[in-house]
Amino acid sequence: MILGIDIGGANTKITKIEGDNYEIHHIYFPMWKKKDELEDLLKNYNNNVDYIALVMTAELADCYKTKKEGVEDIINKVENVFNCPIYVFDVNGNFLISEEAKKRYLDVSASNWNATAKFVSEFIKDSCILVDMGSTTTDIIPIKNKKILAKKTDLDRLMNNQLVYVGTLRTPVSFLANKVEFRGKLTNLSSEYFAITADISLILNKITEDDYTCETPDGAGKDFESCLTRLARVLCADREMIKDDEIIDFANKLYNKLLNLIKENVDTIAKRYNLNDVVITGLGEEILKDALNGYNIISIKELYGKDVSLAMPSFAVAKLLQKQLNE
Amino acid sequence: MILGIDIGGANTKITKIEGDNYEIHHIYFPMWKKKDELEDLLKNYNNNVDYIALVMTAELADCYKTKKEGVEDIINKVENVFNCPIYVFDVNGNFLISEEAKKRYLDVSASNWNATAKFVSEFIKDSCILVDMGSTTTDIIPIKNKKILAKKTDLDRLMNNQLVYVGTLRTPVSFLANKVEFRGKLTNLSSEYFAITADISLILNKITEDDYTCETPDGAGKDFESCLTRLARVLCADREMIKDDEIIDFANKLYNKLLNLIKENVDTIAKRYNLNDVVITGLGEEILKDALNGYNIISIKELYGKDVSLAMPSFAVAKLLQKQLNE
Repeated sequence: MILGIDIGGANTKITKIEGDNYEIHHIYFPMWKKKDELEDLLKNYNNNVDYIALVMTAELADCYKTKKEGVEDIINKVENVFNCPIYVFDVNGNFLISEEAKKRYLDVSASNWNATAKFVSEFIKDSCILVDMGSTTTDIIPIKNKKILAKKTDLDRLMNNQLVYVGTLRTPVSFLANKVEFRGKLTNLSSEYFAITADISLILNKITEDDYTCETPDGAGKDFESCLTRLARVLCADREMIKDDEIIDFANKLYNKLLNLIKENVDTIAKRYNLNDVVITGLGEEILKDALNGYNIISIKELYGKDVSLAMPSFAVAKLLQKQLNE
Repeated sequence: MILGIDIGGANTKITKIEGDNYEIHHIYFPMWKKKDELEDLLKNYNNNVDYIALVMTAELADCYKTKKEGVEDIINKVENVFNCPIYVFDVNGNFLISEEAKKRYLDVSASNWNATAKFVSEFIKDSCILVDMGSTTTDIIPIKNKKILAKKTDLDRLMNNQLVYVGTLRTPVSFLANKVEFRGKLTNLSSEYFAITADISLILNKITEDDYTCETPDGAGKDFESCLTRLARVLCADREMIKDDEIIDFANKLYNKLLNLIKENVDTIAKRYNLNDVVITGLGEEILKDALNGYNIISIKELYGKDVSLAMPSFAVAKLLQKQLNE
């Protein structure tokens, strides 16, 4: 049995793999508050484990002063719990044994998206655009003949259409546009933190209430009505001043701005690398389907289920290690 | 001697007028925390006062459940301190005696910008566009033959180019654009709350460090260096990754987006009402001069000094009452 573990700053995701069977566990586990309880958490999964495949981003959390300190502490904790070989995935696409990984801490830091990309190139398509829309950002990763052509820094990724700062949940609506047509007039929007993409996603049925996992801007509920109320505020209005239909129409206008932002970046990548197959994953799969109409879309959610789509790196490292061990 | 008082949610501004002389006092006084100390504050100014001219917006602060409660409480407190006639300015441009004002609380709520507009129409230009750029928003008020043609609700003002949600300080940079040219490439920006217009305004010398009166997004300093650091984050970068010159160039790109937002709204109003004179006021006067190049610009700061430009409604009501008493 192989355990794929992805230790993030706020969530830890664990995939158990045995042959073709798999089981996903999402645990909300804020490392900046609870890192000293990580071993207790992991002990729950220490049952007949033969190998660990590990990726992490929690070393970037502000409970650690440096990446070195974070990587070492996390690997030590995993070593303390599991009495089996521990392989850590690095940014070059290789597994390092844990002792080696601690020495090469920069190579194993934040390699989770590399794991997803490598999995896609090995198991799904050797040339494609991997588009991962999470809660906060959308990553656009070109893969050509199994080569992952992603830039290394976020600055380079912003400059090269590989990182778009719109997500399914946390993006302020005011980032999408500063004016939108309303009642037939080009209307200015408020720049206050009144509503986020989660409100639009929920109103337009792209996510469920359970998927709305971040805090609401006004601290109120995550239900349809509360989302309408928040969105009305972006027009400095309330639901007595504008009808629900008008708010839904407004949500659609903003949604189209969001779709365009994603589409124009993917289009640029598609042309630059001459790619037309798109593999989509993450909480925003439904949104990506709307944005990338016309591409040949392959959905991780449809292939492996929603749980995998939301916990891709832990699944990916487990699968990649399984393949490597079988070779 | 006339005392013009503008009681806002966060600041109280007081203008003393005697003949042609005036003296301005800005007091940071957060009503939601300190409303019970308002009388003590006002007592400091109770010296040879003949008349009070009052405007307010603090009744909207969340220490009051309703506008009615707020207006009554504020007027009662002013009455308790000053033993002279108290006139409250209303949204129709009239002074009401305090007893009457309490009955017509909706008419005296948030009438501060009306006071400024009426002052401009009476003392400066009877036909013009009044543009007031504060910390958070820019108000664009058409005045034609002494008639103030402003819409009543913020929604209507957003729909009719009279309210633009960009200010000198508090606007998130991510509202200005979601992509900007950087190093010759159209580059995506972060949507996180990393930097605000105060950072741009300070870097480009449009405000001083003393004018940067809101909190910084990262809690760090308001100096030039700290502003550069914050702005670099909008590109997911730090100052080791990009040079200061590049950050300043980036600030200029964003600043041009801000200028365009203001200009296109003023242009629309200018055409709609066939107006070409613009009276500017508020903390953003220097920015407005850049945005409205080509208009005949009249600056309140140049006419009456920076203190007046920053405390316009208190000055305006005092001047308007003085004029009415002399007629």
